[in-house]
Amino acid sequence: MTYCVALYLEDGLVFASDSRTNAGVDYVTTYSKMHTFTPAPDRLFVILSAGNLATTQEVINHISRDLEQPTAGPNLATVNYLFEAAEYLGRISQKVQREHANALAGSGVSGETTLLLGGQIAGQEHGLCMIYPQGNYIAASRETPYLQIGESKYGKPAIDRIVDYKLSLDQGAQLCLVSLDGTARSNITVGPPFEVATYHKNQFRLNCHCRFEEQQPYLLSLRSAWNTGIRQAFLNLPAIPWNGAAEGQQQQQQGVPVPLQTAPPEDPWPPK
Amino acid sequence: MTYCVALYLEDGLVFASDSRTNAGVDYVTTYSKMHTFTPAPDRLFVILSAGNLATTQEVINHISRDLEQPTAGPNLATVNYLFEAAEYLGRISQKVQREHANALAGSGVSGETTLLLGGQIAGQEHGLCMIYPQGNYIAASRETPYLQIGESKYGKPAIDRIVDYKLSLDQGAQLCLVSLDGTARSNITVGPPFEVATYHKNQFRLNCHCRFEEQQPYLLSLRSAWNTGIRQAFLNLPAIPWNGAAEGQQQQQQGVPVPLQTAPPEDPWPPK
Repeated sequence: MTYCVALYLEDGLVFASDSRTNAGVDYVTTYSKMHTFTPAPDRLFVILSAGNLATTQEVINHISRDLEQPTAGPNLATVNYLFEAAEYLGRISQKVQREHANALAGSGVSGETTLLLGGQIAGQEHGLCMIYPQGNYIAASRETPYLQIGESKYGKPAIDRIVDYKLSLDQGAQLCLVSLDGTARSNITVGPPFEVATYHKNQFRLNCHCRFEEQQPYLLSLRSAWNTGIRQAFLNLPAIPWNGAAEGQQQQQQGVPVPLQTAPPEDPWPPK
Repeated sequence: MTYCVALYLEDGLVFASDSRTNAGVDYVTTYSKMHTFTPAPDRLFVILSAGNLATTQEVINHISRDLEQPTAGPNLATVNYLFEAAEYLGRISQKVQREHANALAGSGVSGETTLLLGGQIAGQEHGLCMIYPQGNYIAASRETPYLQIGESKYGKPAIDRIVDYKLSLDQGAQLCLVSLDGTARSNITVGPPFEVATYHKNQFRLNCHCRFEEQQPYLLSLRSAWNTGIRQAFLNLPAIPWNGAAEGQQQQQQGVPVPLQTAPPEDPWPPK
């Protein structure tokens, strides 16, 4: 399994991915799922992938070959818009999947891959898209400033409560690490090393692209601080006012729980 | 969709469930998924359900009928152990599913239901089981003091960080509400009203069984406190030391992010 998340922020983009792949529990390996392309000084693209590893590698290989041996068709050096890059990736992905579809169907294996593509072409805004296995895509927006692929559910609640288009890139990187680390804790098919990259808009190079091993000191301190913070948040929760709760009253009776009380709050409808 | 969670604690049991069911986004309804049976003064059972609503209702109906019109077979009043109750529920669930299997398969609908069963029979410890759609079951333990059914992933990380066999029943109820409310925030097919019940061991009646509507004042204050706490935990995270992070060093350079740095930490193997 895989978990990748990317943020679309005012200042730029944040990318994060785990590195665990598995074909059954007895074949767990480490592969980078973050691929950076800077085919010209006026553009930068980062691709994150989740799904069939063979499909992903073939897609990345074809993207690279199109740059080394340009054809009449588009490639990452010639596209004029980020969405054209998304469409280009979608076509390659579909082509690769089609080629192996019959053979894979016979084995009951899915050849699908889902991609995140973020980046910028000079003169345009930075952007972030998710490319579905079917080749179509959606873009992140100020209102929905993040996209996830792979095992995304465990890491979503923390993001939902914290994410904002105005977060700084460093805050975004912290949030992605928290989301990745929480996912890895709840699902062993997602795991370190984690890769995190941040891109400040209009720079056309990554600010940083770091790898955090399982026992990397910062990751340990982040994990510990988050754990402490979550437990503190729990200890600060208001006590359940059992009487008031069932009756929907403001009254906060913080006493002994009361006997079974299933009656819903008094509803004025229907009138008596 | 559905999300139910139950805790197996030293002091007793906590049960929590949402109340949203849906057959398509245009048929969203509210049903209680928590069913309490106290067929004799020496026993109490609580059943939570996730899955096909028709299957669940039929299972509950058959359990009730077996109590009202006992047959030669077991029922909740005659079983001698909690695990016998789990086996009994598993058999009913399988029978109901088999009866409709062919018709449902033709419609591409799953008739499966997964159940949580918690309770106690006098003279024995309290216990908690999950009954799979296949009719077999597993029990919670001191090391794994919780079980979830339905849309369980969103609400798992918070539980994983906080749950402990030694939590009080009230703390358990708070934790379940946090987990439910976070799930509802990330997935609209899970939603209030939430039901929460706590059972103190050896009492053979529920301490409380409350219903929390969407805008119930305590639920609002809990949601707000948890949100504030999570954001505070985020603000307290250590800053990312970009240099140190990539190099795996203890050194905490909390300065300007450094240029792209993908080199993994120096590994003494293979020897030079």
